[in-house]
Amino acid sequence: MMPSRESNAEQGLSRVERKRRDARDRIVREAEKLMRARPIDEVTIQDITDAADVGHGSFYLHFKSKYEVLIPIIEKEAVRWDVIIQRQFEHESDPAVVLGGSARYMARIIAADPLWRWFLQHSGVPVEDMRHAIGRFGARDFGRGLISGRFSVPELSITTSFVLGGYVSGLLASFDSADPEKTIDQMVEVLLRSLGLAAEEASRIANLELQKLAF
Amino acid sequence: MMPSRESNAEQGLSRVERKRRDARDRIVREAEKLMRARPIDEVTIQDITDAADVGHGSFYLHFKSKYEVLIPIIEKEAVRWDVIIQRQFEHESDPAVVLGGSARYMARIIAADPLWRWFLQHSGVPVEDMRHAIGRFGARDFGRGLISGRFSVPELSITTSFVLGGYVSGLLASFDSADPEKTIDQMVEVLLRSLGLAAEEASRIANLELQKLAF
Repeated sequence: MMPSRESNAEQGLSRVERKRRDARDRIVREAEKLMRARPIDEVTIQDITDAADVGHGSFYLHFKSKYEVLIPIIEKEAVRWDVIIQRQFEHESDPAVVLGGSARYMARIIAADPLWRWFLQHSGVPVEDMRHAIGRFGARDFGRGLISGRFSVPELSITTSFVLGGYVSGLLASFDSADPEKTIDQMVEVLLRSLGLAAEEASRIANLELQKLAF
Repeated sequence: MMPSRESNAEQGLSRVERKRRDARDRIVREAEKLMRARPIDEVTIQDITDAADVGHGSFYLHFKSKYEVLIPIIEKEAVRWDVIIQRQFEHESDPAVVLGGSARYMARIIAADPLWRWFLQHSGVPVEDMRHAIGRFGARDFGRGLISGRFSVPELSITTSFVLGGYVSGLLASFDSADPEKTIDQMVEVLLRSLGLAAEEASRIANLELQKLAF
């Protein structure tokens, strides 16, 4: 069968799509390099498009702002760190220890990363963006605890919204704390109570010694 | 003593200040009228300055955006409702019942007010703005419970950030709920746990019958 005009058109479209995707990847990659090399406020969209060798139109096809370019960057970071954190807990059977420990590690990583900090500080409290970036890992650990009966909540969806909103808001507060790690652990203690743990148990788990993460 | 040039200058300044304040009051008042009369997205800053009989410059002297004009409007509403809600609990001695009940009433009021809803939906999760608008009432009720020992938290400031972030995020989630009042009560149940109440006790208080507010 001869290729129809339509299939030619589809091949054409997919080449355009591929080019678009490549341009997007370059934008994200170069934006991250620039934002890690100097203060984020000093990086302009012009700097990013120059480095990625794309036009302004190409940038705005994919992103509305510098803020939006950060979303895939921090999501990639979250995925990478999640693998490392999960390995730390592979022999841990208590879902509360896994969730509490993961929340403490992730908060420390976020507080130490200028890209995450800038992202959180420039957007009210971006609960929906955070749900996408780290909420899915939390949801997995949360789900295990619900199934095992370790956690108990009045309703899943509203509890998730409450806990995630509280976590992000607490993270922002920890940036201004004189002792960020202590503040993070206190937040996780309150978070574990929200999931149904008794106060003493939440306190114990939120204050377990944290091992150094093994890469 | 003859009035010095300086005191004349001061009087002049205070007259300018007074005029500015009057213009600001008119902007806020007319903005509220317009935003209650038709969909907020359709109200322009031009509409507001026309109604308030001020220039664009005068508007931007006080507010960066339509969003910012809403802050004094919802704060005034919060103050008004807080008086009504407090009256409801004047003979209640349990701070957990007062805080839980106030949080349930205030969430119902917010969910029913298009101005509040628009405000919350147009700003990530504006925890800092909310801290100003309703956080102080929560802090008062929270403080009573801490003093009486009814609440117990690892640290005051981070717990407040966590709970307020969770409350705002939960409120937003309740807007999309099939049963907003039920969702609000479930959120308040989780919130009360955060403050140290045992799960059964949090559940009992978050599900007490709510009387109709008496005006």
